[in-house]
Amino acid sequence: MSGSSSGKMFKIVTFGESHGKAIGVVIDGVKSGMKISGSDIQKELDRRRPGQSRVSTQRRETDKVEILSGVFRGKTLGTPICLLIRNKDVNSKDYEKLKNIFRPGHAGYTYLKKFGIRDYRGGGRASGRETAARVAAGAVAKKILRKKKIKIIGHAIEIAGVKAKKFDAKEIEKNPVRCADKKVAKKMEQKIISAQKTGDSVGGIVEIIAKGVPVGLGEPVFEKLDAKLAGALMGIPAVKGVEIGAGFGAAKMKGSQDNDPIRGVKGKIKFLSNNAGGILGGISTGQEIVVRIAIKPTPSISKEQKTIDEKGKNRKIRVLGRHDPCIVPRVVPVAEAMVALVLVDALKKQKMREGK
Amino acid sequence: MSGSSSGKMFKIVTFGESHGKAIGVVIDGVKSGMKISGSDIQKELDRRRPGQSRVSTQRRETDKVEILSGVFRGKTLGTPICLLIRNKDVNSKDYEKLKNIFRPGHAGYTYLKKFGIRDYRGGGRASGRETAARVAAGAVAKKILRKKKIKIIGHAIEIAGVKAKKFDAKEIEKNPVRCADKKVAKKMEQKIISAQKTGDSVGGIVEIIAKGVPVGLGEPVFEKLDAKLAGALMGIPAVKGVEIGAGFGAAKMKGSQDNDPIRGVKGKIKFLSNNAGGILGGISTGQEIVVRIAIKPTPSISKEQKTIDEKGKNRKIRVLGRHDPCIVPRVVPVAEAMVALVLVDALKKQKMREGK
Amino acid sequence: MSGSSSGKMFKIVTFGESHGKAIGVVIDGVKSGMKISGSDIQKELDRRRPGQSRVSTQRRETDKVEILSGVFRGKTLGTPICLLIRNKDVNSKDYEKLKNIFRPGHAGYTYLKKFGIRDYRGGGRASGRETAARVAAGAVAKKILRKKKIKIIGHAIEIAGVKAKKFDAKEIEKNPVRCADKKVAKKMEQKIISAQKTGDSVGGIVEIIAKGVPVGLGEPVFEKLDAKLAGALMGIPAVKGVEIGAGFGAAKMKGSQDNDPIRGVKGKIKFLSNNAGGILGGISTGQEIVVRIAIKPTPSISKEQKTIDEKGKNRKIRVLGRHDPCIVPRVVPVAEAMVALVLVDALKKQKMREGK
Amino acid sequence: MSGSSSGKMFKIVTFGESHGKAIGVVIDGVKSGMKISGSDIQKELDRRRPGQSRVSTQRRETDKVEILSGVFRGKTLGTPICLLIRNKDVNSKDYEKLKNIFRPGHAGYTYLKKFGIRDYRGGGRASGRETAARVAAGAVAKKILRKKKIKIIGHAIEIAGVKAKKFDAKEIEKNPVRCADKKVAKKMEQKIISAQKTGDSVGGIVEIIAKGVPVGLGEPVFEKLDAKLAGALMGIPAVKGVEIGAGFGAAKMKGSQDNDPIRGVKGKIKFLSNNAGGILGGISTGQEIVVRIAIKPTPSISKEQKTIDEKGKNRKIRVLGRHDPCIVPRVVPVAEAMVALVLVDALKKQKMREGK
Repeated sequence: MSGSSSGKMFKIVTFGESHGKAIGVVIDGVKSGMKISGSDIQKELDRRRPGQSRVSTQRRETDKVEILSGVFRGKTLGTPICLLIRNKDVNSKDYEKLKNIFRPGHAGYTYLKKFGIRDYRGGGRASGRETAARVAAGAVAKKILRKKKIKIIGHAIEIAGVKAKKFDAKEIEKNPVRCADKKVAKKMEQKIISAQKTGDSVGGIVEIIAKGVPVGLGEPVFEKLDAKLAGALMGIPAVKGVEIGAGFGAAKMKGSQDNDPIRGVKGKIKFLSNNAGGILGGISTGQEIVVRIAIKPTPSISKEQKTIDEKGKNRKIRVLGRHDPCIVPRVVPVAEAMVALVLVDALKKQKMREGK
Repeated sequence: MSGSSSGKMFKIVTFGESHGKAIGVVIDGVKSGMKISGSDIQKELDRRRPGQSRVSTQRRETDKVEILSGVFRGKTLGTPICLLIRNKDVNSKDYEKLKNIFRPGHAGYTYLKKFGIRDYRGGGRASGRETAARVAAGAVAKKILRKKKIKIIGHAIEIAGVKAKKFDAKEIEKNPVRCADKKVAKKMEQKIISAQKTGDSVGGIVEIIAKGVPVGLGEPVFEKLDAKLAGALMGIPAVKGVEIGAGFGAAKMKGSQDNDPIRGVKGKIKFLSNNAGGILGGISTGQEIVVRIAIKPTPSISKEQKTIDEKGKNRKIRVLGRHDPCIVPRVVPVAEAMVALVLVDALKKQKMREGK
Repeated sequence: MSGSSSGKMFKIVTFGESHGKAIGVVIDGVKSGMKISGSDIQKELDRRRPGQSRVSTQRRETDKVEILSGVFRGKTLGTPICLLIRNKDVNSKDYEKLKNIFRPGHAGYTYLKKFGIRDYRGGGRASGRETAARVAAGAVAKKILRKKKIKIIGHAIEIAGVKAKKFDAKEIEKNPVRCADKKVAKKMEQKIISAQKTGDSVGGIVEIIAKGVPVGLGEPVFEKLDAKLAGALMGIPAVKGVEIGAGFGAAKMKGSQDNDPIRGVKGKIKFLSNNAGGILGGISTGQEIVVRIAIKPTPSISKEQKTIDEKGKNRKIRVLGRHDPCIVPRVVPVAEAMVALVLVDALKKQKMREGK
Repeated sequence: MSGSSSGKMFKIVTFGESHGKAIGVVIDGVKSGMKISGSDIQKELDRRRPGQSRVSTQRRETDKVEILSGVFRGKTLGTPICLLIRNKDVNSKDYEKLKNIFRPGHAGYTYLKKFGIRDYRGGGRASGRETAARVAAGAVAKKILRKKKIKIIGHAIEIAGVKAKKFDAKEIEKNPVRCADKKVAKKMEQKIISAQKTGDSVGGIVEIIAKGVPVGLGEPVFEKLDAKLAGALMGIPAVKGVEIGAGFGAAKMKGSQDNDPIRGVKGKIKFLSNNAGGILGGISTGQEIVVRIAIKPTPSISKEQKTIDEKGKNRKIRVLGRHDPCIVPRVVPVAEAMVALVLVDALKKQKMREGK
C-alpha cells in the first residue's frame, strides 16, 4: 500500500530509510536453479554507490549486499530472495540543524503532509539511497536478461545543456559522467564542477537502449511496454520526463516521416528507421528499445533559497552536507535497473502466453 | 493478464475489439450511494466520439452507453458497474483488402507476432476505439473528483508545430482542435486539413492540468503520482512522451532556477513557481498538476509507404478508409480520463491512510 | 475493490445483480488461438440453470450466453473475453412485499449495513444467481484443463444426513440431486421434497475430485493449492466448511496412519493412500485432488421465523416465492467451476516457472 | 510469484528458509504515526517459539526480532516495515543423512518436483519455521485491531480425539496445549506424550474466535470474509480443513434450525444463535466470528515408514531429530496471526468505502 512493490511476475518490494538500519529488497518470482552470487549484485551496486568520483556525493557507503534467503549453494530455490544492505556512513548531524525547515525541491514537505511524520535524516524513505535496492533487484533481472541475449545500456546524452555527439559504448564506464562521447564527457564534468563552485547544481538527459529484445513483449491497453517503462522510469527520483523513440520530436513530424517503413531483407524483417523506439501498439517490434529521461538538477544546493519551516514561517536555507552536484551519472545504473525489471516482467508474461 | 486491467482501489477492466460486437468496461471500486446516470457518461463519450468535425474520422458511432449493473434506481450499489457500448457503424470492407499487409506505424505486426492471430478489422483490440471504454470509466472517476472540487482540463498546446500562445479555458471546447487559443486553433485546423490533402497526417502536444488536487496524493517509490500518470498517459495509443512540470526543460536548468521557492502567505503555503508540476517526491504538493504528452501523427495515411505482408514479402501500401488526419483533439478527453482514473485511485489510497 | 475479481494469470471479474439487466464476466488471461464456442459455455450454464427439476427453484431463466469480445472467427484473440447473460424471468413482486424485512440466514442485513443501500430484489449481488458468471468462466477454464487431460467431477455425497455409499460417475448427471449412488439419490430426493412440504429446507456435502492434475501445482506459503481451493470454495454462497483429503478426520489420526506411504512401482511413483487429498506442502502430488464442502440448508423457507425490519422492529417472516428447497445439486457445477478456475491459474503459474 | 505475498491493503511478503541465514517479513500498508516496539512483536513470537514445553520441538531458537525499517523513534513512518529474525540453532546434520529420502507426509517430494531443487535442511521454505514471519506480521496486525477493540482468541478444542468441554479463556496460556479446559488439557498432554513414546504423533482441532468485529467487513463474491479466512487458515502447514460457525454440522440441519433468528433488543440487534459464525453473505454480522481448523498429526515420526528416495527406489525411513509430537499448541498463535491479517485487510477495505 505504501507503493514499495513493483512487478507482477518478477515481483519486488523494497524497504528502508536513508539513515535507518538498512535498506533492502525482497524479490519474489525468480525461477529455481539459476546461479546467482553476491558479486553479480555487488558489481551493479558499485556503479550506483556514492563517493565514486568528485562529481558525486562524498558519503562513504560500501553498500555491501547480503543474500538472506532464496539461494542454496549458489543456486536460486524459486523462493523469495531477500537482499540486505546495511547503512554504515550515517551522518545525521547536518540534518538535525535543518530538521524543521523544508528543503525546496525536496519531498520533505509532501511527506510530512501525507504521513504526518517524517524521517528527516537524509530524506528518509524519499532519499535517492532507496534506489540501491532497485539496483540490487535489477542486477538479478539483468542476469536473467543476459541469458536471453538482452543487453541494456544507459548513458548520459546531455548534462547542463552540453550534448553528446558520438556514441562509443566502451567509453561510458570510463568517465565519471557516463557519457559515450569521450570529449564531451570532459566538458560535462567541467560544467558540473563549475556549477558546484557557485553552490549550484545541474541536470541532464539519460538514454537507455535495450538490445536483443524479442518481438512480442508488452501487453495491450494498460500494460503496454512503453507504459510500463514510462511508469518505471518516471518513478526514479529527479526524473521529470520520459520519451520513447522519436518522443516529443514525433509531435512535429508528419505521418509519412514518422512511420518506420518495413522491409523484408533476406527472410528477415527490418524497419528502415526506429522512430517507434522499438515499440508499436505497446508491444516490442524486435528493434532496439530506445528511451530517454529528463533529470532535474539536484535540489540540495548551498545557494540561499526561500522556504518555510514546519510551522509555516518564512525562512532562508542553504543546504550544506554531502550532495551530488549532478545526479545524472548515478541515475544511469538506476534507470538500467528499472528497464531490466520491466523487461523481465514482460518476458515472463509473454512466456506464459506461448507454448501449449 | 492481457493487460486490460488498471487501478488498485478504483479498478477497471476494459474489453472489446473495434469491429467486434461491443466494447465496454467493468468498474470495481465505486462506493455505494453515489448518484450516477447514463448522461454523466454519455457527455464524455460524446467528446471522444468519431465524426465530430471535419478533422476527425467519419466513422459514425453514436457510442450509446448502457449501464448493465451496479446501479439501482440511480444510485451506485458499491458493486461492479458494467458499461457497454455496442459497435454499430462497422465497415470491415476496407480492412479485408489490406488484411495480409502490415500498416506501418500500426500494431498489426506486433500483435500478430505476439498472439499468432489478430483481428485485422479496424485494428481489433489495438484500435483507438478501445479508448471509449476508458473515457466511460473516466466519466465515473470525474464525477467522484468533482465532489472533491478537483477539475481536470485537457487542451492541445501544439499541433503540426504550431503552438498555442494564450490560455482561455472557455475556448477549448469551442473549436475542433481543442486549443485554448482561439486564433492559433484556426491555424492548427488549417495545418491538419492541408496535411490531409497531401495524404498525410500530423501530431502534436496535449497538456492536462488538474486543479484542486490536495497535498499528499501518491505513494512513495513505485506508485508515485508522477510515475502513475506517466504510465497511464504513455499507454494511450500514439503517445510517445510524457513530461511533468518543467519536464525536459528541467534538464537544462540549474538547481537554483528549478527549485520552486516556498512562502507562507497569510497562513497559506504558496510555491512561487511550479517547475515541479505539482508533484515532489512523487506526492502532490497542492499546486496544479501539469502534465504534457507528445502525440505522434496518425499512422494511417493515404500516401504510399513501404511495408511487408504477412509472408514477409515487400509491398507498397496506401491506407484508405476513414481515419483522423490528426488524433490530437480526440486524445484530449482520453488523456483527461486517464488522469482522472489515476487521481481517484490515489485519493482512495490516501483516504485509507488517514483517519483512525 | 468490491471483491468481484479473482485469479492472477487467468483473471476474471464478474458483475451483475439478480434482478438487474444482466450478469456477466470478463476473463483476462486466455491465451490466443484456442477454439471456443458459445455451446462450450452454454452446456455448463445449463447444468446450473434454475428450473431443471422439481427439487430446484422454478424461476425460468434460459441463461443464454453472448460472447461479446475476445473471440474472432471461433478462436480466442488473447484479449479479454466478455460473456453476457441477460436476466429474463425477473419477478420482483415477491420481494417488494418483504423489501424492508431481513430474511434470516440471508445477506440482506449485512449488505445494508456495509453499503448503506441494497438491491433487495432477489438478493441483488448477493444472490446465488451471481454464480452463473462463475460457471461461464469455469467453462472456459474447463476447456483449457481438458486439453491437459485434467477432469473435474463434482457430486453430492450427503443430503439431509443421507450419505452416498457407492461411486458410479456415470450416475451423477442422471439424477436431479447429482449423487453418484443411484439408490441413495432417490432417498435424497425424497428427503428434499418432504422438507419442502413442511416449508423447510435441507443442506448437504459436495465432493469435488480433480483427476489428472500433474505434480507441482500450487505456490508456497500464501498461494498453496489447498489454500486457494479453500478460499475459492468457501466463497460460494451457502458453503460453511471445506476439507481436503482426510480433512477433519485427520485430526483424530496418528501420524503413522495419516502419512501416505510412497512406493516406486515399475518406475512410477505411487502413494498407497491419499489422506493428503493430492496436496502436500500446498503443492499437488500427482494423486487425485479430493475436496469436500459443507452446504447449509437454503435460508429462504416458508416456515415462520423471527426477524427484524430495517427500522430494527421485531417481525415475523415467511419467505414465499421460488426457492430451491436444497441448493446442493446446483452447487455441484459451481464448485467444479471454482476448482477449474483455481487449477488453471495454478497451471499458468507453474508454466512460467518451467522451461528456460 | 512464489506465493509469499498476502493481503491487498495490509500487504506482507515473507522470506527465508528454515536453515538459511534468516527469515523475515516486509509489511507494506501500516499507517503512519502508530506506536510500535520490538516487544509488541516479540511477545507473539515467544508464543510460537520452539522449545516452550516438553510437548514441542527442542530446537532452541530465541527468535529475536529486529525492526530494520519503517519505524522512526518508536512510531511507524507509513513506509514498509521489515522484520528480521536470524536463524541461530541450525543443526543440519540429521538432515544430511536423510537428504535423498522423502519423508512421508512432507513437502520434500512436491518441492523437488516443482522446483527441481530443494533446500532439504529442516524443510527449507516448506518448514513450519516460515510461520514465525507470519506471527511477526500478525503481531502488528493485532496491535491495530486492539485499537479497534477487536480481540482474537485461539485455543485447542480437540487433541488426539480428546475434546474440551469447558471454555475458560484465562486457562489457555496456562497449559502447554493451549486448551481452555484445564482438566482436559492434562489429558491432551498425556495423549501427546504417550504417542511420542511409541514414535508417533497426534493431531487436533483449533478454534479461533474474533470478538468485537464490527458489522460490514468482507467484500462480495471472491473476497468474502469467510473465503479469505478459509484461504488464510488452510495455508498454514498441517491444516486440512476449515469451517465457519456450524460448519460441517450445518450440512445436517434444516433451514429452520440453521437460520439464526434476529431480534431487536433495546435498540440493539441480536442474533439468537450464531450458526453463521458471525458471517452472512461473506460479510461480518457483528456477532463473534468463529472458525475451526483441523490439524493433521505431525508427519515427522520415528516409527518406520515406507517411502522412496530421490531416484525412486523403495526405502524405509525413521525420522529422528527434534520434532513436535503434536503441532496443535504452536499452531494457535499462527492461526490467530492469520485471522488478524485477514481482519486488518478487511477493515482497511471497509474504511475506504465509508466516509465521503
